[in-house]
Amino acid sequence: MAPRSPVVAVVGPGRDASAGDLASAESAGAAIAAAGAVLVCGGLGGVMEAACRGARSEGGTTIGLLPGTDREDANGWVVLALPTGLGEGRNALIVRAADAIVAIGGGWGTLSEIAFALRAGVPVFGVGTWELGRHGVSVAGVREVPDAAAAVAEALQTVR
Amino acid sequence: MAPRSPVVAVVGPGRDASAGDLASAESAGAAIAAAGAVLVCGGLGGVMEAACRGARSEGGTTIGLLPGTDREDANGWVVLALPTGLGEGRNALIVRAADAIVAIGGGWGTLSEIAFALRAGVPVFGVGTWELGRHGVSVAGVREVPDAAAAVAEALQTVR
Amino acid sequence: MAPRSPVVAVVGPGRDASAGDLASAESAGAAIAAAGAVLVCGGLGGVMEAACRGARSEGGTTIGLLPGTDREDANGWVVLALPTGLGEGRNALIVRAADAIVAIGGGWGTLSEIAFALRAGVPVFGVGTWELGRHGVSVAGVREVPDAAAAVAEALQTVR
Amino acid sequence: MAPRSPVVAVVGPGRDASAGDLASAESAGAAIAAAGAVLVCGGLGGVMEAACRGARSEGGTTIGLLPGTDREDANGWVVLALPTGLGEGRNALIVRAADAIVAIGGGWGTLSEIAFALRAGVPVFGVGTWELGRHGVSVAGVREVPDAAAAVAEALQTVR
Repeated sequence: MAPRSPVVAVVGPGRDASAGDLASAESAGAAIAAAGAVLVCGGLGGVMEAACRGARSEGGTTIGLLPGTDREDANGWVVLALPTGLGEGRNALIVRAADAIVAIGGGWGTLSEIAFALRAGVPVFGVGTWELGRHGVSVAGVREVPDAAAAVAEALQTVR
Repeated sequence: MAPRSPVVAVVGPGRDASAGDLASAESAGAAIAAAGAVLVCGGLGGVMEAACRGARSEGGTTIGLLPGTDREDANGWVVLALPTGLGEGRNALIVRAADAIVAIGGGWGTLSEIAFALRAGVPVFGVGTWELGRHGVSVAGVREVPDAAAAVAEALQTVR
Repeated sequence: MAPRSPVVAVVGPGRDASAGDLASAESAGAAIAAAGAVLVCGGLGGVMEAACRGARSEGGTTIGLLPGTDREDANGWVVLALPTGLGEGRNALIVRAADAIVAIGGGWGTLSEIAFALRAGVPVFGVGTWELGRHGVSVAGVREVPDAAAAVAEALQTVR
Repeated sequence: MAPRSPVVAVVGPGRDASAGDLASAESAGAAIAAAGAVLVCGGLGGVMEAACRGARSEGGTTIGLLPGTDREDANGWVVLALPTGLGEGRNALIVRAADAIVAIGGGWGTLSEIAFALRAGVPVFGVGTWELGRHGVSVAGVREVPDAAAAVAEALQTVR
């Protein structure tokens, strides 16, 4: 049997993704697949769909951990759709499944995934995502990088 | 039957709580109970224990949604201990159970609770907790207030 | 603070409960409350609602662990409604919350709760519920008792 | 992109599997993979490991939905290990992920999976597994078949 492939999660908004977020996500998905890693995501639209489309363009494996109970909710580029029935609680599963996280843009769901990852010690690489602070002092957590290619390159370096 | 009581969650660090966090939490718990509201929290130590102690000092009801499967993990001021077995995923349940959130200090777990709350539209009142931003622009979300009394007063005002 | 009260779960069908199931559930709820124990259940209709109504008639505390995310789904006799958002997965939480289970009638959801309880070593007392076997040999698990009063009496004896 | 592959779950005991259970599981896993379907299971030992070994002997894809949070808990024949952190609650996810269930032998965990599947309308094919009844009347649910080959054949027929 082949050694276990690295798993990288791409997280970001569904409905409210910007055009730039979608371009970053597609490029991140393609880079993950080209490197032989598995893409895991929330399986729905927006950043999730763009990342899956990118990964499939390179023949990669895409896993969608869906919030609902119906596999048909998955976008068309998800190879393996796992309905969790956990609602937003599935965000914790996405983080647990991944060796590293690429966060693109950022809604509240993305912030919850960043929080779970940093708590669990899973490295997070961000493209235009959340900046965190307390009492006016910024808190290091997400490593903001210039673009999706850099995010995936750094993510994979951490894993190997 | 009496009308349903408001439910306020107090969230914040366990192990890494500062002395100021603990004092705020105890004061928040007491104010919640004095107002006839129910306190829900994660049921463990630190901010959670201080909030429960405060609520019990006013004869309040305290609910602990525990990450593990053993009720004995609850701190001694939890009246109703519910072991969820969900690990950090129980943070989503704390948020769903509450009409409003008081966030004190802030570790990564607290940040995940803030994210879930803001996503679900549950108001969050903070005492020395996370500040959020994107691209150098701060994002309104947590309403930072000067102290625990103000946090509980504003939380209860939102509920009623 | 008062010592922690015993917690007894009443599980059984919602929609498909028979008149006998409902009568048993109401009587079980009343007996649980009369003994000073807390009732936990799934918070919806049928057996769950009848048990809560019985418990409230004796002034008891009733907790509903709801499958969805909306507290308004709870029946009118639930004092503390906790929306879990876990769908049927909340059945595992009901079992974890309880010192003993009273199973009345039985749909598939009830069977899942019996299975979780027996796996976790939580005693199950049944009134007209599932009988289990393998290879034609019956398997002891649920202790079938003649009526709800007996179920609650035996459940509370196990706890204390 | 290739059309989505059918997904079949094999469920059964870990530690307490009999030699016959293990032989059935290995044969079921091989038949699932030979038919081009994906195997999903709980990812640990016993029946789960035997099913994965069988599937890998035919070059199949094996997914392990682990109860804990550590991917290293997966048996060596799991290609894709997803730590859920849900404990026994992950049994609901296994059922949701599958088009059909093959149940072999049977502990309490297996019974919970059967219950979830029958509730969700997912067909269950059994080899030496639970028989169910109420009030002395047997309840149809699990379709008991003579061996693992028959279970997989019938499971795949339902899916397509």
